[in-house]
Amino acid sequence: MAKQFDLVVIGAGPGGYIAAIRAAQLGMNVACIDAWSTADGKPAPGGTCTNVGCIPSKALLQSSEHYEQVNHHFAEHGIEVKGVNLKLETLIGRKDTVVKQNNDGILYLFKKNKVTFFHGMGSFSGQVDGGWSIKVSGKAEEELVAKHVIVATGSTPRQLPGLEFDETTVLSNDGALRIPAVPKKLGVIGAGVIGLELGSVWRRLGAEVTVLEAMPEFLAVADQQVAKEALKAFTKQGLKIHTGVKITETKAGAKGVTINYTDSSGAEQKLAVDKLIVSIGRVPNVQGLNAESVGLKLDERGFIAVDDECRTNLPNVWAVGDVVRGPMLAHKAEEEGVAVAERIGGQHGHVNFATIPSVIYTSPEIAWVGRNEQQLKNDGVEYKAGSFPFMANGRARALGDTTGFVKILADAKTDEVLGVHIIGPMASELIAEAVTIMEFRGAAEDIARICHAHPTLSEAVKEAALAVDKRTLNF
Amino acid sequence: MAKQFDLVVIGAGPGGYIAAIRAAQLGMNVACIDAWSTADGKPAPGGTCTNVGCIPSKALLQSSEHYEQVNHHFAEHGIEVKGVNLKLETLIGRKDTVVKQNNDGILYLFKKNKVTFFHGMGSFSGQVDGGWSIKVSGKAEEELVAKHVIVATGSTPRQLPGLEFDETTVLSNDGALRIPAVPKKLGVIGAGVIGLELGSVWRRLGAEVTVLEAMPEFLAVADQQVAKEALKAFTKQGLKIHTGVKITETKAGAKGVTINYTDSSGAEQKLAVDKLIVSIGRVPNVQGLNAESVGLKLDERGFIAVDDECRTNLPNVWAVGDVVRGPMLAHKAEEEGVAVAERIGGQHGHVNFATIPSVIYTSPEIAWVGRNEQQLKNDGVEYKAGSFPFMANGRARALGDTTGFVKILADAKTDEVLGVHIIGPMASELIAEAVTIMEFRGAAEDIARICHAHPTLSEAVKEAALAVDKRTLNF
Repeated sequence: MAKQFDLVVIGAGPGGYIAAIRAAQLGMNVACIDAWSTADGKPAPGGTCTNVGCIPSKALLQSSEHYEQVNHHFAEHGIEVKGVNLKLETLIGRKDTVVKQNNDGILYLFKKNKVTFFHGMGSFSGQVDGGWSIKVSGKAEEELVAKHVIVATGSTPRQLPGLEFDETTVLSNDGALRIPAVPKKLGVIGAGVIGLELGSVWRRLGAEVTVLEAMPEFLAVADQQVAKEALKAFTKQGLKIHTGVKITETKAGAKGVTINYTDSSGAEQKLAVDKLIVSIGRVPNVQGLNAESVGLKLDERGFIAVDDECRTNLPNVWAVGDVVRGPMLAHKAEEEGVAVAERIGGQHGHVNFATIPSVIYTSPEIAWVGRNEQQLKNDGVEYKAGSFPFMANGRARALGDTTGFVKILADAKTDEVLGVHIIGPMASELIAEAVTIMEFRGAAEDIARICHAHPTLSEAVKEAALAVDKRTLNF
Repeated sequence: MAKQFDLVVIGAGPGGYIAAIRAAQLGMNVACIDAWSTADGKPAPGGTCTNVGCIPSKALLQSSEHYEQVNHHFAEHGIEVKGVNLKLETLIGRKDTVVKQNNDGILYLFKKNKVTFFHGMGSFSGQVDGGWSIKVSGKAEEELVAKHVIVATGSTPRQLPGLEFDETTVLSNDGALRIPAVPKKLGVIGAGVIGLELGSVWRRLGAEVTVLEAMPEFLAVADQQVAKEALKAFTKQGLKIHTGVKITETKAGAKGVTINYTDSSGAEQKLAVDKLIVSIGRVPNVQGLNAESVGLKLDERGFIAVDDECRTNLPNVWAVGDVVRGPMLAHKAEEEGVAVAERIGGQHGHVNFATIPSVIYTSPEIAWVGRNEQQLKNDGVEYKAGSFPFMANGRARALGDTTGFVKILADAKTDEVLGVHIIGPMASELIAEAVTIMEFRGAAEDIARICHAHPTLSEAVKEAALAVDKRTLNF
């Protein structure tokens, strides 16, 4: 007989597992289905983020940053080392341990919150008395029935036409996290978050990295002043970045990949690399859901069609995270997961899409929230801009990490903060204050009047707010 | 003839130089007097903070943290090194360079903002037509007259009775920043911010460090749960910390210092060290001001007596920073400096003493704002507490730095955030969000509802806010 639940969540990535836990906290009887497995076949909940995304990339970024520091910067500190040796297996193994801690953590959270976990693929088998029938296939074989369903199946990397991922030579974010030996030449197609983060990891570990980007502008999603500073910093570090590139032919063999392309001037170029990371975007995971059998509507780009509150066209069927519109970010998925669980529970969940921060964990880190200068101009908003360079920040100098700046954009009349754009040390953590200010619809003057501890990097946020009113104290 | 100014600021530490710049921005003709000199006699504005405090200690903390990492933690990352050698001279030299950048930065800021700088000691010579007569003596010899005076002369380290600082064997924060060779045995008297930070530096560099503290509790100023976690972490690192100590006798010689004391159980103990840091508090710098000649009133503890708005008993004479009541913090001095400059300029400067953050830059870092549990209990406030450990934070795991937690205290009825206490990685930067929330008198629920980027340490702040309502998602 089918097992009955108030809610079945398909997918245990950040959107799914968080929704399941929040719903259980609200008193629902919840099941969560996830197919991801460890190498030895055990459940590995957490989705792309935990298994092949945010978490392992940050582990590798940290290790490779240490390697970069010891090789290039410790001498300044009076620390001399002889014979630095990289044991890549240990480095990758540490990353795997961090991932496993997170997998296990989620299983523990399910137990603690009384969420029933099923290890397998979840798919719709039809509408039945009492809700929706959901089939679990894989490690677990079950038939579940639930009044409510949340689809949180995430996304998978987009392939370059004619160039399949083999995860040995042609790598997605997955294979790029476990290259067994540092490649001599590494190509990256797509200068987005994933391409830049993983390109940085392998560059630090010794690879010669070339990044090809189709867009004419570098980091078109970021404020263009930030993008310029980033391009300068990455180039200085040794990343070769080419924008406005058109790939004309790719050939993958056992020994590597050859890419023919035209550069931004239209000239024909050829790049031969040992390994190639393809990071040209991600597509929603809707295969296997059996969506068509129940009439679950997709939008024109293949995402599950939802309204602002994550309702699909089917009654009591919801979808959150990468499988629906909006930025493919773990924390956006989490916010949606919480909001949907609360809506099902009779509360008034809400996601403020205007204050979802974006982060790129390169060095310098890049983070922003709200609108950038291009967007404000396009929207016809009159604004004031204030910037402050980390070069003039005491703590950045003490850390020896002075690249970048904080930039605040505020409404010309009301002074309300409309966007904060940071490139520099710990930008990922500094952005939290900016999100908070924007949630309270605070003004640049508010930031300028708030006491910031000295010496901290966050003083640069305060000074950028002072700069909006042309009264920086330390620059 | 005496040079005439709208405002003379005595002291170019964080309180003084910031006040001078802000006043100049508001259109005043400003002079700033400071006596601090570099080794070769050049001006070294910035006060204790820049020369022998916040900035150089953070430079040494960063360098020594690198040394700690390479010696003890790089192996986990697969980074093997042979023969780590410490060139202490280079390490100290880098610190000196960072200090000089800050000195030069302030001189540049004076020039940019048209503040006239005088290198010497400033003292009152009397009340004259047009305001106050101020004498500059030292490198510069001048007679200035100003309508307004701001005294920002800071503080100096308190000596242990009978044990004078020689900065060779008996060290204040000054000498402790430039010990020419790593001592085998280092004693620290006073487990406050300075003792713990500099004790940590020399422990990481190889010294055997013993800290003696008179108070029965460790870090009595901090939330006691934070203090307990800190004591555990520092002890694990190898700092020997004894509280409830009563020093009975000290003997300093060329070869070191012997300290006789009774421990918390009343037993007699003896400690012999090569060098001793004495960090038992600081006293306001009022000598040399010639305060008595003009009748400038001091309080019973020797601080310049001021009201909430930094007015002294003399008309148009103000005082800010360490030389007046309140916490001896650079950012408190800065806030007062800005507020006084604005008051003189006819604006309504304001300092919110309830939202001044405190930071200790050990590893783990410690930071807090608002009241702790002991204080709320003493004040009879009903509160809820929520904590979240960094052990359960994805980014902390990726960084390999999971000690500590975030703790939020909120009003039991209104949910208003009353205090935030952080021990853990980057606590110094995470506290900025907490200060912002408290400035807006936000609730724990506000933090819990604000999107925090994943994976960041700041998610631990959000989860602690969720914990206040007993609904953590990741713990």
